[in-house]
Amino acid sequence: MALLLCITQWDVAPWLDRLRRLAPGRDIRAWPEVGNPADITYVAVWKQPPGLLATFPNLKGIISLGAGVDHVLSDPTLPDVPLCRVVDGNLTTRMSEWVVMHALIHLRHQRDYDLLQRQKLWREIMPSPAAQELRVGVMGLGVLGLDAIHKLKIMGFDVAGWSRTLKQIDGIRTYADNDLDAFLARTDLLVCLLPLTPETKGLLNRSLFEKLAHDGVLGAPVLMNAGRGGLQVEKDILTCLDEGVLGAATLDVFETEPLPADSPLWSHPAVTVTPHNSAVSDEDAVGRFVLRQVERHERGLPFEAPVDRNRHY
Amino acid sequence: MALLLCITQWDVAPWLDRLRRLAPGRDIRAWPEVGNPADITYVAVWKQPPGLLATFPNLKGIISLGAGVDHVLSDPTLPDVPLCRVVDGNLTTRMSEWVVMHALIHLRHQRDYDLLQRQKLWREIMPSPAAQELRVGVMGLGVLGLDAIHKLKIMGFDVAGWSRTLKQIDGIRTYADNDLDAFLARTDLLVCLLPLTPETKGLLNRSLFEKLAHDGVLGAPVLMNAGRGGLQVEKDILTCLDEGVLGAATLDVFETEPLPADSPLWSHPAVTVTPHNSAVSDEDAVGRFVLRQVERHERGLPFEAPVDRNRHY
Repeated sequence: MALLLCITQWDVAPWLDRLRRLAPGRDIRAWPEVGNPADITYVAVWKQPPGLLATFPNLKGIISLGAGVDHVLSDPTLPDVPLCRVVDGNLTTRMSEWVVMHALIHLRHQRDYDLLQRQKLWREIMPSPAAQELRVGVMGLGVLGLDAIHKLKIMGFDVAGWSRTLKQIDGIRTYADNDLDAFLARTDLLVCLLPLTPETKGLLNRSLFEKLAHDGVLGAPVLMNAGRGGLQVEKDILTCLDEGVLGAATLDVFETEPLPADSPLWSHPAVTVTPHNSAVSDEDAVGRFVLRQVERHERGLPFEAPVDRNRHY
Repeated sequence: MALLLCITQWDVAPWLDRLRRLAPGRDIRAWPEVGNPADITYVAVWKQPPGLLATFPNLKGIISLGAGVDHVLSDPTLPDVPLCRVVDGNLTTRMSEWVVMHALIHLRHQRDYDLLQRQKLWREIMPSPAAQELRVGVMGLGVLGLDAIHKLKIMGFDVAGWSRTLKQIDGIRTYADNDLDAFLARTDLLVCLLPLTPETKGLLNRSLFEKLAHDGVLGAPVLMNAGRGGLQVEKDILTCLDEGVLGAATLDVFETEPLPADSPLWSHPAVTVTPHNSAVSDEDAVGRFVLRQVERHERGLPFEAPVDRNRHY
């Protein structure tokens, strides 16, 4: 009975240290030091090498180290055992910090004020709308989306939400699948927090941007994406920015990460790039979450955040 | 019976147009086109010329066009008639937008991420504390301070408040005059929303900065001032930044406004300058507020936001 960390693209050493410190009595290993594959009963994964998990005959459960599971499900030989994703209050709070901060930066033209400061110019940028005049639309009404909506509303924004299946939220106008166009038509600032699934891949494209509101207080609609890079078509974002179909974009996720040095997104004046840091988890909290899932499952209880593979979240 | 606009440093023409549009039947004038001084019963003022108001023998009330009244009270010949300041829900919301946005920018190192973007560097800045790890202290617990505290708390910050006389706020630790040192000792990020009075002039100086917490998650304490420029000693801010007594400062107000082109604040890498735009009022809302005060007072009712001249607010 061993828990294996299967991590690529991140440094595995601090995760191993952390889990061993949190559960000193437990057999915890880190790929590629697997030992006997028959020992492995649980895996905690971030972009595991495809095919690896299928080599563990006694595997009982898989825990994704991220809120999304697209990086797990992309493995065609993924064993058919229960799958869990991280739901961490801290991660939710961090995401809402990112969403509210960047929504306010757009509302208040803060990037333009930063530029004026570098030019030593004392000047007010007009018009200067209040939050209530900006129609924010949040796509994705899971734990992250609901928290972001709540906080955007407290800050005064005129918020609505969209999800695949209709959700009722007190005091918030919500839209479902077949109402996407109506949702987009009332949205000046689009905040995308969707999971990456076969249905959402490439959703943030020219056709969608053209349906956003073009009569809003910012002049042209703004895109914010902190879901997954695979949701967006970066070529379309760039041409739509240049043609005025979009006014600005703040992106935390990219088709290729790290964002390549030659991407024009880096230097486009209307683009804000953050390095997939919108919802940095408290690593101890994630470690405790992972260990709690293993303990629950060993005692015959279900995972706290089971993933439906058909829905991809 | 005439309402006179006494405005310097701003363009008076749009104010005159606005008030006349909102109250077409009323006699509204703009200094210096006063006409007969005996006609003037009310004045709406922004930095009136000293001595001017004393020349109106029938003056019944003075309405400040700003939330502060320091610019009115600095006139030694100010007539002893009721004085009112603007309290506008929109202005409160706008101020909280500024406070929450800049607190989040400091928490999340957004200015450093902007710099990394200009250098095309994909890098995470560590440590990356959550809002709950940052102790924010708000000085000034009037309408603006209370709203800012509420919203900072919703965003997750560890907030406390200070005011001259102790105020009780549900779920918030508050401090009063004699507890200033204890308040500063637990503050990583200081948000100053105080009025300018003889007691608060120059309060934000080296001695105060040295009392802030120096063991916080940002490494060194941060100053944010959106009160009045006269509260701060800019020479001390600059030397404290250079010596590490302060880590950063975001300033919306300055000893001299507009901030002179030769001020070192413009180009200091740890200083964010905004051009006194933290709480831009909805001008129609302020216009309606002014006219409502005149109508109330003419009907024998008190002003909605009377100023106690001894307290200066």
